[in-house]
Amino acid sequence: MDLSDYEWQLKRPVRMRANDFEREGRLKHVLFASQFNRSLLDKLCAMADKIRELSKSKQGSDDLRHLLSHKRAMLYFTQPSTRTFLSFMAACQILGLTCNEVRDPSTSSEVKRESPLDSIRMFSSYFDIIIMRSKLPDFAECCAYLMNDLERQERRSVPIINGGAGTDQHPTQALLDVYTIQRTFQFDHHEGTRRSRFHDLRRKYTDLTLGPDRKVYAFCGDLGRGRTVRSLVELLSLFEGVTMYFIAPNHETLQLDVDLRNRLVDAGINLHEFDSLDATLDGVPILERLDCLYMTRIQREHNSSQQEAEIGSLDLAPFLLTPERVARMKSYAPILHPFPRDSVVQEIPTDIDQDPRAMYFRQARNGMWARAALLVHLFNVVDDLYDLYDQAFKDGSDSNTRTR
Amino acid sequence: MDLSDYEWQLKRPVRMRANDFEREGRLKHVLFASQFNRSLLDKLCAMADKIRELSKSKQGSDDLRHLLSHKRAMLYFTQPSTRTFLSFMAACQILGLTCNEVRDPSTSSEVKRESPLDSIRMFSSYFDIIIMRSKLPDFAECCAYLMNDLERQERRSVPIINGGAGTDQHPTQALLDVYTIQRTFQFDHHEGTRRSRFHDLRRKYTDLTLGPDRKVYAFCGDLGRGRTVRSLVELLSLFEGVTMYFIAPNHETLQLDVDLRNRLVDAGINLHEFDSLDATLDGVPILERLDCLYMTRIQREHNSSQQEAEIGSLDLAPFLLTPERVARMKSYAPILHPFPRDSVVQEIPTDIDQDPRAMYFRQARNGMWARAALLVHLFNVVDDLYDLYDQAFKDGSDSNTRTR
Amino acid sequence: MDLSDYEWQLKRPVRMRANDFEREGRLKHVLFASQFNRSLLDKLCAMADKIRELSKSKQGSDDLRHLLSHKRAMLYFTQPSTRTFLSFMAACQILGLTCNEVRDPSTSSEVKRESPLDSIRMFSSYFDIIIMRSKLPDFAECCAYLMNDLERQERRSVPIINGGAGTDQHPTQALLDVYTIQRTFQFDHHEGTRRSRFHDLRRKYTDLTLGPDRKVYAFCGDLGRGRTVRSLVELLSLFEGVTMYFIAPNHETLQLDVDLRNRLVDAGINLHEFDSLDATLDGVPILERLDCLYMTRIQREHNSSQQEAEIGSLDLAPFLLTPERVARMKSYAPILHPFPRDSVVQEIPTDIDQDPRAMYFRQARNGMWARAALLVHLFNVVDDLYDLYDQAFKDGSDSNTRTR
Repeated sequence: MDLSDYEWQLKRPVRMRANDFEREGRLKHVLFASQFNRSLLDKLCAMADKIRELSKSKQGSDDLRHLLSHKRAMLYFTQPSTRTFLSFMAACQILGLTCNEVRDPSTSSEVKRESPLDSIRMFSSYFDIIIMRSKLPDFAECCAYLMNDLERQERRSVPIINGGAGTDQHPTQALLDVYTIQRTFQFDHHEGTRRSRFHDLRRKYTDLTLGPDRKVYAFCGDLGRGRTVRSLVELLSLFEGVTMYFIAPNHETLQLDVDLRNRLVDAGINLHEFDSLDATLDGVPILERLDCLYMTRIQREHNSSQQEAEIGSLDLAPFLLTPERVARMKSYAPILHPFPRDSVVQEIPTDIDQDPRAMYFRQARNGMWARAALLVHLFNVVDDLYDLYDQAFKDGSDSNTRTR
Repeated sequence: MDLSDYEWQLKRPVRMRANDFEREGRLKHVLFASQFNRSLLDKLCAMADKIRELSKSKQGSDDLRHLLSHKRAMLYFTQPSTRTFLSFMAACQILGLTCNEVRDPSTSSEVKRESPLDSIRMFSSYFDIIIMRSKLPDFAECCAYLMNDLERQERRSVPIINGGAGTDQHPTQALLDVYTIQRTFQFDHHEGTRRSRFHDLRRKYTDLTLGPDRKVYAFCGDLGRGRTVRSLVELLSLFEGVTMYFIAPNHETLQLDVDLRNRLVDAGINLHEFDSLDATLDGVPILERLDCLYMTRIQREHNSSQQEAEIGSLDLAPFLLTPERVARMKSYAPILHPFPRDSVVQEIPTDIDQDPRAMYFRQARNGMWARAALLVHLFNVVDDLYDLYDQAFKDGSDSNTRTR
Repeated sequence: MDLSDYEWQLKRPVRMRANDFEREGRLKHVLFASQFNRSLLDKLCAMADKIRELSKSKQGSDDLRHLLSHKRAMLYFTQPSTRTFLSFMAACQILGLTCNEVRDPSTSSEVKRESPLDSIRMFSSYFDIIIMRSKLPDFAECCAYLMNDLERQERRSVPIINGGAGTDQHPTQALLDVYTIQRTFQFDHHEGTRRSRFHDLRRKYTDLTLGPDRKVYAFCGDLGRGRTVRSLVELLSLFEGVTMYFIAPNHETLQLDVDLRNRLVDAGINLHEFDSLDATLDGVPILERLDCLYMTRIQREHNSSQQEAEIGSLDLAPFLLTPERVARMKSYAPILHPFPRDSVVQEIPTDIDQDPRAMYFRQARNGMWARAALLVHLFNVVDDLYDLYDQAFKDGSDSNTRTR
């Protein structure tokens, strides 16, 4: 059992691999975004909402922390990632999971020539789930195959979550992005009010519909290297009538991958590429057309020395948000960003933070709820969560719409 | 929203800044020692006592851990500090707060050019309080302004505690010092006995009074660079009839800051400076006069190369405690030290540790209770704490003296 | 109070030192394996079983986490050890102990010239137990003497556990090894069945008895430098009719220490040394004779440069397990390994992992239960554990055999 033993499995089409990571419609391991189908996304978003609402009261928080208080998590993050790491920590803590971490890539066992799979199996001896981000490409997926092997041998096996490994997928980031989009397009997210903003908005935007379907999504910046964009567009393509704009500088490294572009077109996505936020389509500025703007950071740290010179000489101004550009957007269109943003380039300057459309900090917070929902799903305590929710909100008005 | 945007606020007088960090007599953020007034100090000390007493039983401990079990803390300590860090950890844990930490100054986000304020706001998305010690001067205060801005915008905002940043203030160290002094001067702290030592002591020390008022406080060692001394004298100046002795080597770096000296004199403090622990005042050795001796370590690690030579050549013997010197002190006079002590210079040799006046390890432990009390105050669960206490000690004899 | 102050105590015979670390038949501190006598081992194994069984249900897990929820642990691991560290973390978490850690050997206090004993006493101010692995030889034992001194002075004192310091003992590893052996030789450990494998096995192995007594234990590999082997053989020598085989390359560094060899012979152990796993005794291959095989890794990282050359040129093939060699072993004989194993040398190749005799991953997991049992003993909550167990399994059939 060496990493190379799993090579043939890694080479199979993604659909076959996904099959290995689920059982009776429930995920066993979370490796890539395409494991989420529309129905599962709906369920996870609904659960994230329930968790968020329960968390508002002390009683609800205490109840939630009892859900998985008997489980222990290992966060194995040998590739540094403060944000994703802390978000997973918080998600675990919300559900009472005890957290343990390994973050130093040079653990003592490496010196002693322990195989990476032995290390992971050791973790699985002590802990009940492994959430991981490692520099080894495909390592998380290999660990999931190891766990499947152990399960077949009736030995101890635990779920694996890919926390965004290497240049791979970042499935939970895509999940939280979809959750944020789904919540935003409910138009009723203002705290403490019962009245829907949707009806008000329809007076101006007569075609507006609820939910992520039939919307125009614009992605701007480093579209070639951002795992988040790749993972998210795959999930958005599950929704109906979706249009996508891709706005990137004229440099191969930064533009949408051709394979992905073709897959999207095949999936029936209405797709357009632009070289500026000020571009127009059929004479109408794209800024006025889009329903959701997803900004990204130019990932300079991944530049080769040649790219450094080429990308360094690009004019990035057409790809930076400004208050003037925001002013032209629809009044409800959320601005997202996977963060961190670049404080030198300033693809989103801080004076936009106060705009009600600036959704990027809420998006980060939504990551907690979405990841907690995923844990509830993986540990199969969905019914317990709904029971808690029903108890807390006894009138049941919300629970009628439950989507388990 | 950049650090420089807050510069004008930082330049205001301390009283104005303090106003920004409280609301209706309750602290919102804890940045500097002068935010504590006499009444608040009394309340916090009383709460620390309650927490300490409840912690003695399993039931009390479990009840305490329920007080803030629904909250999550971020301990952002990018400037190393084992002692303060662990003390805050323990304080959080006593109250059931789930702890998270960032201690590595070179987080991944810096490489990605995230602004420090974005990092803090990210933490505030996941966690309910941020306790911080950073190398950036005034960073904690800037973060508190950011949180105030967010609050005004009705966005998510959390309390900030300064855990002793840069060369700034160290307010919670001053708080625990005052708590230790206050407890010591109750003269009834011996476990398991009901009888007050105060009456016995009064036979010998006829002027002795209860509490920190009307006492002689001596500070010895590195008075110029110790944040703890600066923060503590400010708090002690709130008490009545206080005398202060400052005993430091004849080197500008080590002596009391002139500004602070003038402020103390203006505040009516009876202040004297000496160049040896063996000095006398009005013919009486100061060792026999003092009611409390606060020792400090010469902070060699902050020496410039010129200071290294100068300070290295100083005779430190007059500033080191010895059993002989301790023998001359009043039988009740506590010896404090913010720790760590220098095991080479030995400002307090270990053979003094067994002396009943050696209070420095209890002082460390008091830090837990004092910091826990501060958390109870910040999260506004004071009434819940008193309810727990009243339930636990039903006869109510102690609760009559409650000072909320 | 300096480390050197304890030198005379360290030089006393081990029996006298052990006396200092117990009180009324209960351990106060855990420093070396010989502190465990046969009766205590039996008790700890029985407790580990109870903890393991309670952990299987949510209710049982939640009850266990309430046992020590009022206590806080410090894991001071300045000598890196991922495995032991995580195992202790998990053990603490099972019992609800809140965990804190110091793992960086260069803490801030060292720069400030704090003495190591001051650091430890500081930890004991905040936490209720210290589990430690440090590079300083005998440091853990000195800390235990410091705690004893404090106890005598009626100051705060907490238990110390040696987590495997320097070239010293590794008592908790030996405990978990004995627990694994004891469990294996119950022959009823298959989950979900009530039927004992023992009766089936007796048809083929007519002399087979229950429990660790009257068994042949073989140790193979780096016997000179492995603390685990040294600690374990000491404990196994407490059992009756034990035979030991030592199989090591012909190099002084790797072979059983002469002193230990003599002690074992004096203790009446039937002892044999071999230079290959294929050796025979009285014409019968030792592989067919042994009841338990304990494999170890050649600890290359401790080679001197001379040893590097010498040991590098040894033929290790006679000391590596292969499927062929495993096939010759008794059908029940467990294979143990303290882990990590060397993925280059492959003393146990991964294709043996699926063999039912491969016990090394269960052994790791047993470490959690054994260490949790030790914590229950140290904190004197044994009766509470048994009460929980009796409540959970009310028919009481198991509790009649309880060995407290």
